[in-house]
Amino acid sequence: MPVNLQPPAAGALLPVHGMLLGTAEASIKKPGRKDLLVMQLDSQAAVAGVFTQNRFCAAPVTVAREHLASGKGVCALVINTGNANAGTGEQGMAAARATCAEVAALLDCEAEQVLPFSTGVIMEALPLARIIAGLPMCISGLREDNWLDAAHAIMTTDIVAKGVSRQITLAGKTVTITGIAKGSGMIHPNMATMLGYIATDAAVAQPLLQQMVKHASDASFNCITVDGDTSTNDALMLIATGKSDAPAITEAQGAAFDKLQEAVTEVAILLAQAIVRDGEGATKFITIGVEGGASAAECRQIAYAVARSPLVKTAFFASDPNLGRILAAIGYAGVQDLDVQHLKLYLDDVLVAEHGGRAASYREEDGQRVMRQSDITIRVVLGRGAAAARVWTCDFSYDYVKINASYRS
Amino acid sequence: MPVNLQPPAAGALLPVHGMLLGTAEASIKKPGRKDLLVMQLDSQAAVAGVFTQNRFCAAPVTVAREHLASGKGVCALVINTGNANAGTGEQGMAAARATCAEVAALLDCEAEQVLPFSTGVIMEALPLARIIAGLPMCISGLREDNWLDAAHAIMTTDIVAKGVSRQITLAGKTVTITGIAKGSGMIHPNMATMLGYIATDAAVAQPLLQQMVKHASDASFNCITVDGDTSTNDALMLIATGKSDAPAITEAQGAAFDKLQEAVTEVAILLAQAIVRDGEGATKFITIGVEGGASAAECRQIAYAVARSPLVKTAFFASDPNLGRILAAIGYAGVQDLDVQHLKLYLDDVLVAEHGGRAASYREEDGQRVMRQSDITIRVVLGRGAAAARVWTCDFSYDYVKINASYRS
Repeated sequence: MPVNLQPPAAGALLPVHGMLLGTAEASIKKPGRKDLLVMQLDSQAAVAGVFTQNRFCAAPVTVAREHLASGKGVCALVINTGNANAGTGEQGMAAARATCAEVAALLDCEAEQVLPFSTGVIMEALPLARIIAGLPMCISGLREDNWLDAAHAIMTTDIVAKGVSRQITLAGKTVTITGIAKGSGMIHPNMATMLGYIATDAAVAQPLLQQMVKHASDASFNCITVDGDTSTNDALMLIATGKSDAPAITEAQGAAFDKLQEAVTEVAILLAQAIVRDGEGATKFITIGVEGGASAAECRQIAYAVARSPLVKTAFFASDPNLGRILAAIGYAGVQDLDVQHLKLYLDDVLVAEHGGRAASYREEDGQRVMRQSDITIRVVLGRGAAAARVWTCDFSYDYVKINASYRS
Repeated sequence: MPVNLQPPAAGALLPVHGMLLGTAEASIKKPGRKDLLVMQLDSQAAVAGVFTQNRFCAAPVTVAREHLASGKGVCALVINTGNANAGTGEQGMAAARATCAEVAALLDCEAEQVLPFSTGVIMEALPLARIIAGLPMCISGLREDNWLDAAHAIMTTDIVAKGVSRQITLAGKTVTITGIAKGSGMIHPNMATMLGYIATDAAVAQPLLQQMVKHASDASFNCITVDGDTSTNDALMLIATGKSDAPAITEAQGAAFDKLQEAVTEVAILLAQAIVRDGEGATKFITIGVEGGASAAECRQIAYAVARSPLVKTAFFASDPNLGRILAAIGYAGVQDLDVQHLKLYLDDVLVAEHGGRAASYREEDGQRVMRQSDITIRVVLGRGAAAARVWTCDFSYDYVKINASYRS
């Protein structure tokens, strides 16, 4: 079950002026589940995105990159769940292009102005006919106030729909930021995660928007892991419709850019954390902070070694303070000159290890108390410098195995 | 349950002349289980070893390295299970040294001539008093024909005792090679694995023995992973007692060196494979061969990405040919210029994917048939060059979680 995570309440996801959303049940997934989403954008909207670094990236990722690079602007995004259209070769590319062409025909724009996204099983042919049959339902249902429905339509093994809204004031004018995301397994993003969409009605020049989405994804989706598996379909898109009354943001230096970037990043972090809290089989939400490093890279390396260790993750599932497993993971993280004599390990506020071994003050019952919590922080102080990094992950339970041993059935 | 793995039959593990083994129940683990082993070596024996690269390496690893480097020769090895003496700081170093001193006193040699080894839980104090109390029982029971007992005495979560013997003829004289190993979880060796001991009565100069153990471990223990966790205590030791009648091996060029190295490597491979077959919770034994690479390093990188993927491992547990997960793992392995158009994926003899997607000839029932087997080969042909690598792993089952959520209890 998701760890301290509620779906957005009715009305919690605020409309973003200049953007309409419509969903359909296209029978790609099980009957009775929404599995197709179209987002229509105002003609003035700017769009930026970051995509998976997986070499087997999905056909829609390749096509979305091409279409973004065409410079023709974006009229719509189309997203299906239930099938990833990845590992599908030329046939998959053709199916992604055909989906775009169909959306373009229905919305009277060019195919290059449509960005396609898919999520679901890999190496099976995209059910193109069902998608094309479902699109008119999406289009006829396009509404500004439809974000929660959209969050549902992109779920796969997610248990809880994920969405966040924030409002800030720029030059005295209200600006809205709303984001949705999906993802629960195959989560170890490298540039972005399995489908995140954040929109604002602020006006932002496209190059600045690209800078902003990179910053937000590095601080959020690129800091999470559920199972160490980097998806073929990861994408985080940032949309600025320009429909608020606030003045356009045209340079990266300035209070308005900083304020918007901060709010976008906050939304991205909450969405990324929601993915971990709803990680496949998760029962614990674990924050791993590594500080005092010689570089941020080595801090990340150590944080990810701990976050990916099946032995650490199963100990957390069991609420068993078998914390030597954390030391082992730190030790094999690959920081060759790490001196473990100077390292300190904390579990929340409890000092667990120092001087290369268990701290004299450590008592098993203190470790046990923290391990029983559902939200836990592991803090590693390296004593080598001033750099730091933070990663969020979840534990490894019977249910992870169950979910992934039966994903296709 | 172990995958196609039987314990050595009575008499299958051949004595190695010049080497005595004795075990005891020292109450380090559960009562009624052998948990302490002493191996006494002939004064002429040469010893070589490779150890874990984990920065949090255990106290006995540090002490064994020091004692080997002292150049005083090796009189005995002492191995306890139930406690790893890792992450134990200065106290742990003192306990490892005290163990060596006690063995030395009992066998009338110097402490620097004793090599200590430990395996079990991390960051708990070594129960030194119980070890010292158990040593006389080991010593009084020293016998040449005691390898199976020794294989039992080093087990932790292992279900099956692991040992192999081979005999070869050098210059018309019979030479015996016997090896034992333990390990089931925290298995992702980097230089060697969690306790392997191979002994031969051949006579081999120490530098050549070091070369031989490196070669054998690179071809065996360094090609396996159960859970991606590199242990703090990994060690593979190769002992040459020199008690056979075959002439001493004094140079690396020559038929005798090659023949012995081949036999030692074969024993090491069988022991390493036994560890995977008895991997925690394993139900499938999976060989991952990557060929046609530009370098062996990139082949290993891809093989390990597949071998470590929880999604791939749970699909094998389920016998579900959800093989797109293998493509995803290949794609995120980090080979930046990999062109997936030229890649071929086979499951045993079944061509699964080519041209970036599912092979036209692939039928689900063929994949299903192979997935139901207990021994399966994944073959990836990169089409980039002539390099290759091979890795052995197992699947990921409910029992892995169960074993590791309850390891200390």
